[in-house]
Amino acid sequence: MPAPRVIFSAGDHALVRAWAGDLLERMRRHGGGPDGSVTRLVYTPEWCGAMAELEDWMTVAGLEVRVDAVGSRFGRLAGSLADTVLTGSHVDTVPRGGAFDGAMGIAVAACAVRWLREMVGRPRLTLEVLANCEEESSRFATGFWGSRAMLGLIRPDEPDWIRDASGVSIGQAMWACGLDPALIPTARRSDLVAFIEPHVEQGPELEQAGLPIGVVERIVGVRQLRITMDGVAGHAGTLPMADRRDALAGAAEVVLAVEAAAREAGPPAVATVGVLEVEPGGFNQVPGRARFSVDLRHDDPEALAALEERIRRAVDRIAAGRGLAVALERPFAQAPVDMDPRLVETIERVCREAGIPWRRMPSHAGHDAQVLAGACPVAMIFSPSRGGLSHRPDEHTDLDDVARAVRVLVGTLQQIAY
Amino acid sequence: MPAPRVIFSAGDHALVRAWAGDLLERMRRHGGGPDGSVTRLVYTPEWCGAMAELEDWMTVAGLEVRVDAVGSRFGRLAGSLADTVLTGSHVDTVPRGGAFDGAMGIAVAACAVRWLREMVGRPRLTLEVLANCEEESSRFATGFWGSRAMLGLIRPDEPDWIRDASGVSIGQAMWACGLDPALIPTARRSDLVAFIEPHVEQGPELEQAGLPIGVVERIVGVRQLRITMDGVAGHAGTLPMADRRDALAGAAEVVLAVEAAAREAGPPAVATVGVLEVEPGGFNQVPGRARFSVDLRHDDPEALAALEERIRRAVDRIAAGRGLAVALERPFAQAPVDMDPRLVETIERVCREAGIPWRRMPSHAGHDAQVLAGACPVAMIFSPSRGGLSHRPDEHTDLDDVARAVRVLVGTLQQIAY
Repeated sequence: MPAPRVIFSAGDHALVRAWAGDLLERMRRHGGGPDGSVTRLVYTPEWCGAMAELEDWMTVAGLEVRVDAVGSRFGRLAGSLADTVLTGSHVDTVPRGGAFDGAMGIAVAACAVRWLREMVGRPRLTLEVLANCEEESSRFATGFWGSRAMLGLIRPDEPDWIRDASGVSIGQAMWACGLDPALIPTARRSDLVAFIEPHVEQGPELEQAGLPIGVVERIVGVRQLRITMDGVAGHAGTLPMADRRDALAGAAEVVLAVEAAAREAGPPAVATVGVLEVEPGGFNQVPGRARFSVDLRHDDPEALAALEERIRRAVDRIAAGRGLAVALERPFAQAPVDMDPRLVETIERVCREAGIPWRRMPSHAGHDAQVLAGACPVAMIFSPSRGGLSHRPDEHTDLDDVARAVRVLVGTLQQIAY
Repeated sequence: MPAPRVIFSAGDHALVRAWAGDLLERMRRHGGGPDGSVTRLVYTPEWCGAMAELEDWMTVAGLEVRVDAVGSRFGRLAGSLADTVLTGSHVDTVPRGGAFDGAMGIAVAACAVRWLREMVGRPRLTLEVLANCEEESSRFATGFWGSRAMLGLIRPDEPDWIRDASGVSIGQAMWACGLDPALIPTARRSDLVAFIEPHVEQGPELEQAGLPIGVVERIVGVRQLRITMDGVAGHAGTLPMADRRDALAGAAEVVLAVEAAAREAGPPAVATVGVLEVEPGGFNQVPGRARFSVDLRHDDPEALAALEERIRRAVDRIAAGRGLAVALERPFAQAPVDMDPRLVETIERVCREAGIPWRRMPSHAGHDAQVLAGACPVAMIFSPSRGGLSHRPDEHTDLDDVARAVRVLVGTLQQIAY
């Protein structure tokens, strides 16, 4: 039986715009700074506050709230079947990030499910709003803690050995929030039939094209390299230029080679040196060691491999030319992940019928959807980021665009769950 | 009356070699680490321990020990005149430095004055061994605290506003060693007629030339720049290469331009970027800000100015090309300082008569001598640094070369003070 077409008026737009705006403001308070920044790291008091706020909001909205073993919150609208369509995003932020990355996806999902409950009623498939505990790896190098818990991918030793900068293990941090790490296996889900993640684009494409919706086709592949170049430290006055093996000068050449490689590969290739540390680090000391990261992304796996290969060759050539020793690790590699084509088509049909312009696009950032793709068909709905800015205090998405994302998600959930 | 020629036998060489080796080992214990490093920052317990050790050694050696208001120690061999020839160097080290920078100069001076006292007797001019409290600016950005105290150049507000990385003021640190900052003006000296500073070369020239002694003609001029480049931070995935204003990429170009400018200017020009910090500093964040230092040195003031000008132009060109904002400060500039020609000639005559090969050379590093040059004629005697290495745990000077420096200093002091 085809689902009836949703009627979503200008009044509904205004209503969900107000709901979403209120919820985003309420979440911003938890970790918000005077400069507009939000710092909400997993298992901190700010994070606990945001989770309590969401529980309260979802309860008032008539959703049944559940907490899983890692602390993710689920706001349930039970359907006639237990098979569950999950929608939402993550609660945590980067340090001094903004109020939209993660939070907007939760707000869009929460408002869509609330609207469906109030305006359409009980669904056939169960709907759940996901407030995922952790995605950003900004306190712990966790790699999608909440999503991995849902897939049963957290190894038993991880709660103890994953530690934050002050040496607190993620297991200890969980206990501080009343969560028992021994129960992590209970977070595993086998009832998921789809996951739809609304999220801010975090880039400039939608704004530049004047489009309110992006329908993600694929999440780009990512490779991260960690490189240490070792030369010889020395006194900035007494070590003649001809005798130097300056690790920072070598790293500087690599920074420029990384940039050139991505520019020459052309869009959507990107490559970034975001971390660079110099030792010994005194103003009058020739650097003996430079440690830095390289982050490479491309939506084509072969092009990504070629980009990495080109950068590795540049590192070797530069190190050989300067007499530097190199240690290179690849701590992270993620192949491109395709979104489910049928979900993508459904979202596009909803956009078309609602008269909301959209484009298909890749996601250049990693998201929970790429992990949950291991459990069920997944899709993502992007909203424009003002100025393409993200992970910054001034990250912003217009509330009318947030409401349009709610409208598209409402239509999509209505198509698949009713 | 010309002073009689000193008789300094192979036995004397062995004797002062043993004295110096023992004193260097005793000093190394104060701040010494298991890897051979020495960390002896001013007004720390390690520094106090080294000063107590020196007081003990000098007292046993028959010198009259005095402490000035900033904690520098003076081991006095009174002459028939109060006019004083000062010789020695600094007690403090850089973090994880070695056992010779500073300490060797004190050991050479202490052994020379002890030998003269025991073998020659009372001088005409008073001799004083200097164990200077602070030279490295490694705990506080003091800039020659001990020497400036002797010249009355410490401003009354400095003890309060100069602070270490943990916020302790240098005045508080002095109190912790029983020193009253209010008494700093009493450290001023008006009785100095010469200062001779033995020191490790900290560079490779003497070792490469196979020479045990360097007679410093001039201390090179130094300029330090502090540069901040501001671009736009962003997400390493979502910010397209074409839209980036990557502050680290700009800084990398400057690092290479600084290196190229010094290489093209030719020796003795050196230029170093020793500090480089990136913000926000995440592996998946395009750097929005890079802060770095440039240290420039040359013995010719005009060439030094030209080098700075060339680097400033490169910074402006690179910033303009990348749309980066630049803030550039010059927190430190020191003109080249000439050693006293008559002292230089005296030291060379002593070398010639003792059959010790030497060369005239510039000092590429700053030293207390450049400050004390404001009070009296100054000179420096350099000893070879193994491998040219300095400010490192493996910094080393052969004890026979230390003994040769004692021999040269003995002859020099004998010429001018007896």
